[in-house]
Amino acid sequence: MSKQPAKLLYASTEASADALYFSGFFVPDPVVLLEAGRQKVGVFSRLEIGRAEKESSLDLLYAYEDLIKYAREAYGVKQPGPAELIRALAEDFGLTAFSVPGDFPHAVAAKLIAAGLKIEAGEGMFFPEREKKTEAEACAVAEGNKASAAGIRAAEQALRRSKIERGYLKLDGKRLTSERLRVIIQTACLEAGAIADHVICAGGDQACDPHCIGEGPLRANELIIVDVFPRVMKTGYHGDMTRTFLKGKATPEQKRLVATVHAAQKAALGAIKARTTGKLVHTAAAKTFEEAGYETGQVDGVWQGFIHSTGHGLGLEVHESPRVSTATNRLKAGAVITVEPGLYYPGLGGCRIEDVVQVTGDGYQLLSKAPYKWELK
Amino acid sequence: MSKQPAKLLYASTEASADALYFSGFFVPDPVVLLEAGRQKVGVFSRLEIGRAEKESSLDLLYAYEDLIKYAREAYGVKQPGPAELIRALAEDFGLTAFSVPGDFPHAVAAKLIAAGLKIEAGEGMFFPEREKKTEAEACAVAEGNKASAAGIRAAEQALRRSKIERGYLKLDGKRLTSERLRVIIQTACLEAGAIADHVICAGGDQACDPHCIGEGPLRANELIIVDVFPRVMKTGYHGDMTRTFLKGKATPEQKRLVATVHAAQKAALGAIKARTTGKLVHTAAAKTFEEAGYETGQVDGVWQGFIHSTGHGLGLEVHESPRVSTATNRLKAGAVITVEPGLYYPGLGGCRIEDVVQVTGDGYQLLSKAPYKWELK
Repeated sequence: MSKQPAKLLYASTEASADALYFSGFFVPDPVVLLEAGRQKVGVFSRLEIGRAEKESSLDLLYAYEDLIKYAREAYGVKQPGPAELIRALAEDFGLTAFSVPGDFPHAVAAKLIAAGLKIEAGEGMFFPEREKKTEAEACAVAEGNKASAAGIRAAEQALRRSKIERGYLKLDGKRLTSERLRVIIQTACLEAGAIADHVICAGGDQACDPHCIGEGPLRANELIIVDVFPRVMKTGYHGDMTRTFLKGKATPEQKRLVATVHAAQKAALGAIKARTTGKLVHTAAAKTFEEAGYETGQVDGVWQGFIHSTGHGLGLEVHESPRVSTATNRLKAGAVITVEPGLYYPGLGGCRIEDVVQVTGDGYQLLSKAPYKWELK
Repeated sequence: MSKQPAKLLYASTEASADALYFSGFFVPDPVVLLEAGRQKVGVFSRLEIGRAEKESSLDLLYAYEDLIKYAREAYGVKQPGPAELIRALAEDFGLTAFSVPGDFPHAVAAKLIAAGLKIEAGEGMFFPEREKKTEAEACAVAEGNKASAAGIRAAEQALRRSKIERGYLKLDGKRLTSERLRVIIQTACLEAGAIADHVICAGGDQACDPHCIGEGPLRANELIIVDVFPRVMKTGYHGDMTRTFLKGKATPEQKRLVATVHAAQKAALGAIKARTTGKLVHTAAAKTFEEAGYETGQVDGVWQGFIHSTGHGLGLEVHESPRVSTATNRLKAGAVITVEPGLYYPGLGGCRIEDVVQVTGDGYQLLSKAPYKWELK
């Protein structure tokens, strides 16, 4: 019997990045996945097992129907569920203790514990190696950012082609709304092989709420934040890029805001290297804002200024480890992070500029590319 | 103190249909949601709380930052997590027992149990009322199916416009592949307000694996299954429709296959009404196939024939309750289900026809609409 707890998952690989990372295979319904010694094991129904053989990175596949039959007899359960499948696997591999991710379903864990198995849910990352991206993973993120860039380019072109009528934007004779611009971006992402959900196209004060995706007509002479974080359909890896545009003529205040955000991004990028802390990178951006006189705080109950962290890890999830915030975690060589400082002032508008880099020993490698031209006539 | 366990969730409303159902609000990171008596409570960060006030269906919002501050002092934890937030809420509402969904994260549950709280993970549905759709929900599914129909119509037009060259399809001078057809469908869905992931465009033997999404060039004279299950961006509800096409000329065997699948769908639809079992509906389709001489079973280790269930519930999830299979659950009035019999024979190809209905007292109401014309010259 092994004494080391075996890694155990029960999740859909569509929904769980850990499960997708482990199996390399898209499957819509939850499946049992197990790391038994050096063997990667999966249980699949007859509908999926053929595809799993061809497409997954697993070593050993069990037929769900066979295990169910065994579990029904062995445990006297009429309708065996995942807990009984896992008990059957535990018997086969002589396992009594499992390590599970924090989001492992409690209903299944409770049954396994009741059956005498030991279940340990770790804090932090289930596969810590996910934080350091391989070359193939960095390429997959760069591919995601190509889709982001295609979306942002499509947005820029739509804004350039738009005409200003009574303060509003018109494209091909129809009002250009956040919703229309979003579909234009999403279509460009699709053509680049990626699905972009919740694309942010927010103008004016809407953009001051960083998670507001934007709605209604877009106006001339206001800052428009375009944030595109698509998932590449083939791999499941994401891109994540933001540009801020303005159609018409910018005021000196808007120009200074955008220039300062750009400077803060450069400062943050300049602070990146392996073993430095996320906090140092974040502070570099924050300091740029402070020194330029941009204050952060609550005004009439609404937060304004630099109200979010400078970045986050990016990969199979849009938000993953490491943090690039006030936390003092150290950045590992190979980590892939976003660098996206922003400033938000209701009345003036919001600006965020975001790129993606891979951390190296003495700096970073850019994994995203798009122009920074923002004032569009 | 309440004796009834209070419903508790900790999930992203993007990922958890239960959380979205409860809060009516999209939020990317996991949030604490609680049903305390008649009050629907949520904890949101300062980034989200403004949006939550405007957009959610919750009654009482807590500021994450305030609760964290309280939890840090009350429990002596340096970095309070969801378990500590929930303990703080439990104190406020005088709660000691919680009912959680089966997929509630075990790591959080284990901490709550260790802190002396009672956590019950139910079997089955967390919100059983989700199975019976309200009029608004049925409309939201119908909206999803409008997007599905737009995708299927776009596929049909692309196939009609294609030319046949040496057995392959060409559209606008370039080979029509599964991948290209998928983007055409996804674009049409987007324009209808919905995101369609994993659209199936599978021709020939690829279609005999019902979850294979299809890849590579599409051929003339072969059956092509197009299955589109988009999510409406505004509401999160899904459509789900399938049509099977053939570009060129069908053989008598292909014609008989398609006609039999269509007849099986009609038979299944004819069996639907409230209080009947899913099994009776499934059997109506299965019987049609048997009587027409289409056998189901393993041939050389590969399953063929009618190898999946007739349908499934549809709503905030693509697959949800109730089942329409060999299980003997009764269909409730108001349930929304797919009806999608299919036949799959390597060599001949696959055919599936899928529509969506809402179960009524004495029959059903169709929630999807698209033509059944399939042989395209």
